[in-house]
Amino acid sequence: MASSRQPIGVFDSGIGGLTVVKALIEDLPSESIVYFGDTARVPYGTKSKDTIVKFSLENVEFLLRFGVKCIVIACNTSSSWALPTLRKYFKVPIVGVIRPGAQAAVRQTKTGRIGVIGTRATIRSRAYEAAVHRIDPSMKVFSESCPLFVPLVEEGWLNGSVCKAAAERYLEPLKRQRIDTLILGCTHYPLLAPTILHVLGPRVALVDSARQTALEVRGLLMGTDTLRERNARPSYRFFVTDEPEQFAGLSRRFLERRAMAVEQVNGHP
Amino acid sequence: MASSRQPIGVFDSGIGGLTVVKALIEDLPSESIVYFGDTARVPYGTKSKDTIVKFSLENVEFLLRFGVKCIVIACNTSSSWALPTLRKYFKVPIVGVIRPGAQAAVRQTKTGRIGVIGTRATIRSRAYEAAVHRIDPSMKVFSESCPLFVPLVEEGWLNGSVCKAAAERYLEPLKRQRIDTLILGCTHYPLLAPTILHVLGPRVALVDSARQTALEVRGLLMGTDTLRERNARPSYRFFVTDEPEQFAGLSRRFLERRAMAVEQVNGHP
Repeated sequence: MASSRQPIGVFDSGIGGLTVVKALIEDLPSESIVYFGDTARVPYGTKSKDTIVKFSLENVEFLLRFGVKCIVIACNTSSSWALPTLRKYFKVPIVGVIRPGAQAAVRQTKTGRIGVIGTRATIRSRAYEAAVHRIDPSMKVFSESCPLFVPLVEEGWLNGSVCKAAAERYLEPLKRQRIDTLILGCTHYPLLAPTILHVLGPRVALVDSARQTALEVRGLLMGTDTLRERNARPSYRFFVTDEPEQFAGLSRRFLERRAMAVEQVNGHP
Repeated sequence: MASSRQPIGVFDSGIGGLTVVKALIEDLPSESIVYFGDTARVPYGTKSKDTIVKFSLENVEFLLRFGVKCIVIACNTSSSWALPTLRKYFKVPIVGVIRPGAQAAVRQTKTGRIGVIGTRATIRSRAYEAAVHRIDPSMKVFSESCPLFVPLVEEGWLNGSVCKAAAERYLEPLKRQRIDTLILGCTHYPLLAPTILHVLGPRVALVDSARQTALEVRGLLMGTDTLRERNARPSYRFFVTDEPEQFAGLSRRFLERRAMAVEQVNGHP
């Protein structure tokens, strides 16, 4: 039986999942978290379904060693392709970021015209279309993969001519479709929000799965009676497969927190 | 004892190494080749020295199973960081792309002002500076990492506004240093040559290690008496760690050849 003291396990292909960790910390401040970032094999979004599923299985196995009470896949690519397989292999409750994002978008849209942007793998999976249509089959969903957005964020080029030119090129088809809501289907993309709004215009609402995912985790913990008492003191542990220094540096951009202790896992989980 | 019939082993983090394979096929048309592309863990250029060395050791171990007579590291990042360690661990002769590129640049320059561009890991290693200065300590070397160039090539955006804006931003400091020769220190970059020349001007000579590396391999095979007879019929085998389809598709851009058989290696070598 899971106890409320057990930590929440979170994994991502690298660093982007920290935007989800940030939302979890804000929303569930007494919960302990174990984060696993597969920085030696990042990115997942350019890779095949089989490879994404294989890596995701290994990541869950790693987190289970810490007795986590639930697992959050803080990675759109992995949520898109691996969630059904992970749920089949493991008994621990697993939350992905796709359904929360789809739900927030359906709630947000007024015209029923929703855009989705993500990595090549996420868009190819059509997971967001399926999730949106499961909630409301009348919605129109338009998708575009934006492979350069992750490298742009990791380069720190969040605006300026290169970023704007790339955003214009990727978002032009969505603009033509007159979407009124855009799902940021990759945990890196919220950092590009100002540039994306500059291209699409201020009337388009941007949906970022992080907050909605935190709400879903809260619901899960309440439902399984494993929500931790309010005044408990949380602990945070961060593990990466590549060297910790780079992660610790980049993490400030995502987490908006001071330096934190990051441990390296030797070899793959 | 190595025999001339044994294949040449070539590895890269992914697909870029095929530009080196192309030069090997042109220059040594009777040699058989076994290529290994670590497409499940690509890229290496954003990762740490330890991870690059670890992956490279595994890649060599994989190629040794085929009884290769020598190994070519067709990856600047891996050549920069892993070559000394690989030479320490393995008896098989190993050729990297750094010294050949440095040699070609020193031969090419008239003003002694050489630029180098590469991934973040390659530039951080300062391997090209060291190699150039070992040949001629009077040379001035100016380096810039260009992390977006690989994603741009893989996106197929070889010119156009995004590519030009990125090239201008990365190459501006080298332009200011009035270099007359630029080492393309990443196997993807030759595909950006027209855009790079557009920014730097037609007077700057671009040096691509591929051809020079093939010459060094020829020299090695002659020196060890393992050059294959001229009219022998070569065989080519390609292995990747992610799914073969994407590799086979992208490979046409690099190899300028028709479809080829690509095999997947399950799990890591």
